[in-house]
Amino acid sequence: MLTYTFEKREKGSLYEQLYRFIRGDILSGRLQAGEKLPSKRTLAQHLEVSIITVKNAYEQLLAEGYIHARQRCGYFVSEVERPPESRQAAPAVPAETAKEQGWFLDFASGAMDPAYFPFTVWARLMRQTILEQDKELLRAAPYNGAAELRVAIAGYLRQFRGMQVDPEQIIVGAGTELLYHLLIQLLGRDKCYAVEEPGYSKIAAIYESNLVQVQYIGIDEAGLSVSELRRHTAQVVHISPTHHYPTGTVMPIGRRQELLRWAAEEDERYILEDDYDSEFRFVGRPIPTLYSTDENQRVIYLNTFSKTIAPSIRISYMILPPRLLERYRKKLGFYACTVSGFEQYTLAKFLEQGHFERHLGRMRNRYRQKRDQVMAEFLQGALAGRVKITGQDAGLHFLAQLQTVLPDAVLQKKAAEQGLRLAMLSDYYHEGGDARGHTLVVNYSGLDMQRLPQALRRLADILKEETPCTTN
Amino acid sequence: MLTYTFEKREKGSLYEQLYRFIRGDILSGRLQAGEKLPSKRTLAQHLEVSIITVKNAYEQLLAEGYIHARQRCGYFVSEVERPPESRQAAPAVPAETAKEQGWFLDFASGAMDPAYFPFTVWARLMRQTILEQDKELLRAAPYNGAAELRVAIAGYLRQFRGMQVDPEQIIVGAGTELLYHLLIQLLGRDKCYAVEEPGYSKIAAIYESNLVQVQYIGIDEAGLSVSELRRHTAQVVHISPTHHYPTGTVMPIGRRQELLRWAAEEDERYILEDDYDSEFRFVGRPIPTLYSTDENQRVIYLNTFSKTIAPSIRISYMILPPRLLERYRKKLGFYACTVSGFEQYTLAKFLEQGHFERHLGRMRNRYRQKRDQVMAEFLQGALAGRVKITGQDAGLHFLAQLQTVLPDAVLQKKAAEQGLRLAMLSDYYHEGGDARGHTLVVNYSGLDMQRLPQALRRLADILKEETPCTTN
Repeated sequence: MLTYTFEKREKGSLYEQLYRFIRGDILSGRLQAGEKLPSKRTLAQHLEVSIITVKNAYEQLLAEGYIHARQRCGYFVSEVERPPESRQAAPAVPAETAKEQGWFLDFASGAMDPAYFPFTVWARLMRQTILEQDKELLRAAPYNGAAELRVAIAGYLRQFRGMQVDPEQIIVGAGTELLYHLLIQLLGRDKCYAVEEPGYSKIAAIYESNLVQVQYIGIDEAGLSVSELRRHTAQVVHISPTHHYPTGTVMPIGRRQELLRWAAEEDERYILEDDYDSEFRFVGRPIPTLYSTDENQRVIYLNTFSKTIAPSIRISYMILPPRLLERYRKKLGFYACTVSGFEQYTLAKFLEQGHFERHLGRMRNRYRQKRDQVMAEFLQGALAGRVKITGQDAGLHFLAQLQTVLPDAVLQKKAAEQGLRLAMLSDYYHEGGDARGHTLVVNYSGLDMQRLPQALRRLADILKEETPCTTN
Repeated sequence: MLTYTFEKREKGSLYEQLYRFIRGDILSGRLQAGEKLPSKRTLAQHLEVSIITVKNAYEQLLAEGYIHARQRCGYFVSEVERPPESRQAAPAVPAETAKEQGWFLDFASGAMDPAYFPFTVWARLMRQTILEQDKELLRAAPYNGAAELRVAIAGYLRQFRGMQVDPEQIIVGAGTELLYHLLIQLLGRDKCYAVEEPGYSKIAAIYESNLVQVQYIGIDEAGLSVSELRRHTAQVVHISPTHHYPTGTVMPIGRRQELLRWAAEEDERYILEDDYDSEFRFVGRPIPTLYSTDENQRVIYLNTFSKTIAPSIRISYMILPPRLLERYRKKLGFYACTVSGFEQYTLAKFLEQGHFERHLGRMRNRYRQKRDQVMAEFLQGALAGRVKITGQDAGLHFLAQLQTVLPDAVLQKKAAEQGLRLAMLSDYYHEGGDARGHTLVVNYSGLDMQRLPQALRRLADILKEETPCTTN
């Protein structure tokens, strides 16, 4: 008869202990497959526990398949494989490689200044959402996002961007990267997607990770070259016409029209207009979107609130032309919306009550000031006379071309030794850009102004080292 | 000379009006490509506005490419296509088809009872997060989720599920569907994925929407048939071994071992263990996970908090075996985490402070009561004697086999006419199940108890209609 010693309530209830004892005996082979277990009553008497305890233990073993019941016969041990001896050693988790280095100054990362986040307002709206919208918060949002948020986005776009958008055209998602995934499924994995060269490498990486064919189209002073595009088979073009990354080029109206004509020529050509930082234009009015200029329903517009509110807020959206709506619902309407209700309702309030536009106004002022300070330091500090700045009218970065003979990779390596992380324009080429471009991409939004003069002195010292013999 | 009449500050600033006037003239052809614009000073004097106004208008036109500058010559109209006449009519947005019908009672939808959400606690933790974690909230979370949340999940799994997991193995994402996308990219689009037949159709839909090959493997009383699996080429199996949907089958230990052996036989075979509602087990202890039984690092475990806390909270996670971690970081580490910081930190607190386990305990009690009430109504109400219930030990649904000769589709249609939405077991077959199974899948969690007796009377009436002449 099975005999076990129970511990006093320390390791779970009696039935759990009994379940574990018997399971152990089955796994160790002490109880063999086919062997009949004692009846509940017999075992209960033998172990001096209640029948309920034995019943519960047997039922758990039954549920997990360690034993089986034969009607009116009782319980029998099932066929169970014995684990090998070496089961204890847990596999090692490989340590994360390439831990982020502690840079003295990082020119490559577009971190936001935490002081800019409208914390008090956001927190108040979140509390308000929690109090007012308790019912809605528990329902899953529709596939395309909460109606309140879509209406608020459409209202904002109408009022401040001059865009006519029906809330039904808007699809809300947890980040633009995720919307690309949906677009690949919507437009077709068999299509070839064109991206800008140079450009934001993550976009191509996402297409390639999805094994979708990518073509790289060069840009000239008017942005993506449509004549080069025509020499390719791409049917979908992914661009940022209002502010190309990283050159800052604005696509002029003539090139836009040329691109829209290209798209209208075939039925399944589309343009993905990624408008990720159009809100930060420091000169003149906002540039009208390609979406608004399009008359043939070929432009899908994408934007995000992560850049304008905070990176940890993951809310992006896309606007589909009406001709794609029905296809989207049929093919992808079964996907659940990826953004939590709390944040959708909070953002809707933030937009409706005008906080977003006020926040943007403040951010534009602050970033303009920051940009001016950083530019002044570049032009008048240790690098004075050896640097030319372009692409500063919009976005949170500008280009700084350095007078040097150092190839970009050497410059980056030497800078890294001095604690400086540099992004070079040549890094943004897929095929390898001109390594003698000597052009820094300066992401200024998160730069520590205290450290900047010293960082530029270090950079100037590197340049000096390598231009010997100009004066003896 | 260009002559325009300005409106009094109503339609934007003077420079905006001037910009719009000139743009209009360019688009209408009144100003031709190549034409020279008057100098800023001349136009300013002519229109009686400041030079700054003209300068700003010209710069905006320049930025958008309507005009171009030639050095020391002035500004010239660029080549711009004229829009066709028909530009006004905005395209119609197709109305959403198949609006949800207002059902009298919906047996098919697993809605949560809003009263069950731990609203006060969640709101308090959210406020706490807003107050305490302001700095962290503004930084983007690492690709795999906030460290605090991953530590909290690992702690919960260790304490309540007996799972040994390193927080580094956890990847947090905005919903399980999204994690499937990542897994397809991680394990390979070229692989064939096996799903359960019958099963949750959305899983196959996601693979198919990604053009990944899907194979349907039948289940028997021990769950997915490994011998049938062996007759297929699938290398990845997507299953819910602890609670199959919709039959409720628990895979016994013998079958689990057989499946794990299958996986270990080839280097790139994996099992996706979708443990979506294992928390709602009403009988005995929780069933140990397949992940814990696996000794060859072939099981990827997935679970979600949307089912247990609220559908509008989009936080899921997966646990990768250590051998896949490095591959994940290299291939997919560039994707941003899709869950907002606010909710990650709030959930971390909810787990750490033991609220989650207490919440689950309450939910288990409430749902057990709800299940008992619904089952009693089925067994003792209008359908008494004509229904057999199975699969009620776990999850938020059970099966109810009806005594009827009506094919499932006819039954569903007649029920719909009476305002009842029915899910039938045969609906969960890809190839078409036994339409004479007459088995309802009763999702009881959101059922309105007031309406249930009346709904069952309507159902009984339908069954009665169609069993004529048994008594004359």
